[in-house]
Amino acid sequence: MKMETTARSLASALHIAKGVVHRRNSIPVLSAVKLSDGRLSAMGGVDMRVEVALPTVGKSRGSAAIDCHSLAGLLAHIPGNEAIEITDDHSLATIKFNGSEYQLPSYAASDFPSNLLEKNEGHRTALDNVGFIAAIKRVMFAASTDEFRYYLNGVATVYLNGEPVVVATDGRRMAWMPIPFIPVGAEGAILPSEAVAFLVKRKLEPKAAVFSTDSLSARFEYDGLVFTTKCIDGTYPDIARALPEPPAPYAHLDRREAVAVLLRLSSLDALGNDCAVILTGADGRVSITRDGGAYSGRETLSCKTFDTGGFKVGFNGRYLLDVLSALSGDGVTLSAEAGGIGSSPSIFTSDDDPLRTVLMPMRI
Amino acid sequence: MKMETTARSLASALHIAKGVVHRRNSIPVLSAVKLSDGRLSAMGGVDMRVEVALPTVGKSRGSAAIDCHSLAGLLAHIPGNEAIEITDDHSLATIKFNGSEYQLPSYAASDFPSNLLEKNEGHRTALDNVGFIAAIKRVMFAASTDEFRYYLNGVATVYLNGEPVVVATDGRRMAWMPIPFIPVGAEGAILPSEAVAFLVKRKLEPKAAVFSTDSLSARFEYDGLVFTTKCIDGTYPDIARALPEPPAPYAHLDRREAVAVLLRLSSLDALGNDCAVILTGADGRVSITRDGGAYSGRETLSCKTFDTGGFKVGFNGRYLLDVLSALSGDGVTLSAEAGGIGSSPSIFTSDDDPLRTVLMPMRI
Repeated sequence: MKMETTARSLASALHIAKGVVHRRNSIPVLSAVKLSDGRLSAMGGVDMRVEVALPTVGKSRGSAAIDCHSLAGLLAHIPGNEAIEITDDHSLATIKFNGSEYQLPSYAASDFPSNLLEKNEGHRTALDNVGFIAAIKRVMFAASTDEFRYYLNGVATVYLNGEPVVVATDGRRMAWMPIPFIPVGAEGAILPSEAVAFLVKRKLEPKAAVFSTDSLSARFEYDGLVFTTKCIDGTYPDIARALPEPPAPYAHLDRREAVAVLLRLSSLDALGNDCAVILTGADGRVSITRDGGAYSGRETLSCKTFDTGGFKVGFNGRYLLDVLSALSGDGVTLSAEAGGIGSSPSIFTSDDDPLRTVLMPMRI
Repeated sequence: MKMETTARSLASALHIAKGVVHRRNSIPVLSAVKLSDGRLSAMGGVDMRVEVALPTVGKSRGSAAIDCHSLAGLLAHIPGNEAIEITDDHSLATIKFNGSEYQLPSYAASDFPSNLLEKNEGHRTALDNVGFIAAIKRVMFAASTDEFRYYLNGVATVYLNGEPVVVATDGRRMAWMPIPFIPVGAEGAILPSEAVAFLVKRKLEPKAAVFSTDSLSARFEYDGLVFTTKCIDGTYPDIARALPEPPAPYAHLDRREAVAVLLRLSSLDALGNDCAVILTGADGRVSITRDGGAYSGRETLSCKTFDTGGFKVGFNGRYLLDVLSALSGDGVTLSAEAGGIGSSPSIFTSDDDPLRTVLMPMRI
C-alpha cells in the first residue's frame, strides 16, 4: 500500500474518525482506520461507520488499516501543509514527512469489516435545510442512559397525534420537537445516543438520509462524509399515552427568573436528588422550596395562576432546571390534567418555541 | 450573629476561600468559613489559612462558621448587587436576600481553629514587584508529587553557589530561578505545593511576607488578603551537588522545533514512560528517536554540536518536553559533564531566560 496526501486533509479526516472509534475494542481491527484510494473509513464498534473523503496526491495503490488514535495523535502535531507519505508492509505502517519517519501498527485491510452495515438500502430522502438534526439536538437531553431500558437510549422519529416529531424520554422526563416530515422508512426508528452525539457534532445538516427498515439502519450523507448507524432494535413507547388529556394550564412564569431560582436551589446539592423542588402557587405568586433539615431554600416569584386556583407540585430539581433551560422563550407555561396537578405529568411550553417538554411530578 | 453585605463582596471572598478549603475534612468545622466583623477566614486542612476582607453594611455583631462550599455554590447564582443578610442560630445559618431565604449548617464560631498558625512572628519583608511568586510559578512544574519524598513536594528558597534562587525538583528533573534576595527567615524554607498553587493563582504579587523559623510558617500579605501556610518540615537536598561541574555545552537547538518534534514523539503514548527519547548528535545534526517495536519515530533537526564531538543521550520524553516548554527563548543549549554526557545530568538553558532546568538522563 502506498498513498500521499497532506497533513491537513489526513488530520481533518482523522478528527472526524476519532469521534466514532472506541479507544478499546475486543476486535483489534476496529481500533483502526482504513485508508484506501481517496477514502478513510472508521467503525464505532460494530454498529456505526463513518466514511470520509480523503484527497490524495498522485497515484495511490492498495489499502491499509492503521491504529486510529495513534495516527490522529501524531497528525495533530504535524504542520498542515506537510506532504505525508504512507506505506504499509507486514502489519507495520510507515508515515513519512519532511525527512521524519514514524511507524505504527497496522492490520490487514481485508480484515476491516467492509460488509457490515453494507445492506443499507432504501429510499433516499433529501434533508437539506429541514433541520432534522437541529431538532434532534434539542430533545436529546431527555434520553435515558439506563442500559436496561435500551430502547430509550436514543432519539426516536414518530407521529404524535398525527404530527411528525423527534422525541426522547427516560420515563420521567420527555422532550419532542416537530419536524416537517418523517424521512421514508424512519417511522419508529430509534437512533442510538452515540450516533446522535456524532450527528449533532457536525456543523451542517446532512444532505440526505436513507432509513433501511430491512437492516434496521440509517445512513446520513454529507458532502464528503457518509455516516451509517444501526438503529436500536426495539419498540418506542406510545408517548401520546403519557400526556395529560386535555392539558389545562395552571401556571405561567418568567423562564429566566425561574432558572435563576432553580440554580440556587440546586446548589443545595447535599440534599441529593430525592429532595424535590416544591412549587406552591396561589394568588399570582408561586413559592419554590427545597427543604431537608439543615439545608433548605425558599423563594417566591410572581406567577400567573389560572382558574385551577392554587396548586402544589414537586419535581426533581435537576430535571426541572433541564427542561426550563432547554426551552428558549421569555415565559413558560405549565399545564397538567385539571384537578390532578400533583399526580399528572406537567407539560412545559414556552412562547414562540416549538419544543415541548414533559416532566413527571415527584411524590411530596 | 448578624451581618449584612453584598452578594458581590461575599461571592468574591468565598471564591478565594474555595481555593483552600478541602471538600472533605475529618474535622467538620474545617469545611466552614468563619464570618466575623469585616473578615472571612478559611482553613485548608490544619496547615493553611486565608483571611479575606469582607466589607459589611451597617452594624454587624458576633461571628459564625458556615459550610464553605454550600455557601459558595449558593452565592455563585445570586446577582452581585443583592443585599445579603446572614444570621446564625443554633447551628443553622439563615441567608436572606430579596425576599428569599436559605438555611445552611453552621458551626460554633468558637470551634473554628483561630490560634492555629497564630504564632507566625518574624521580620516582615517587603516583596512589592520583586517577582517572588512569578519565579515560583516558573519552577513549580518540577516539584515531586511522591508523598514518600514529602520534602520535595513544594518549592524551596535557597542559595545556589551564593545566588538566591527558588527551586523545585523531584530527583529526576530540577528547575530554579534567581530571585533578587531571600526574604528574612526564608532560607531553606519549603513552601508546600498546595500553598504554591494558591499563591500562583493570585493575579498580584504579595506586598510582603513573614517567614517564621520558630513556627516554620510563612505569611503572605496582599491588599485585603492574608495567606498563612505551614512550611514543609524537612531539609531540602543540596542542589549544587546534583549539578555537573563544570558544565560543558554539547548541543544548541531551535527550541520550538524541538518542542514540535517531542510533541509528535510523545503522541506514541502506547510506548509508555519507560521508552526514552534518544538524542544522537554529530556534524551539526541531531537525530531524535523513540523506538519500541510496532511504534517508533525518528526525526532530524539541525543542531550546533560543540568540541565534544558526537553525543548520545536518552531522556524521559514527557520530562524533556516539560523542560523545553518551560523555557522561553528561541534557542536552547544543553550542557553536561565533559566526557560523560550520557550519564551526567544535563542543564538546559535558553537565550535571555534566567530559568535553569536540569534533567537526569535515562539509561539507554
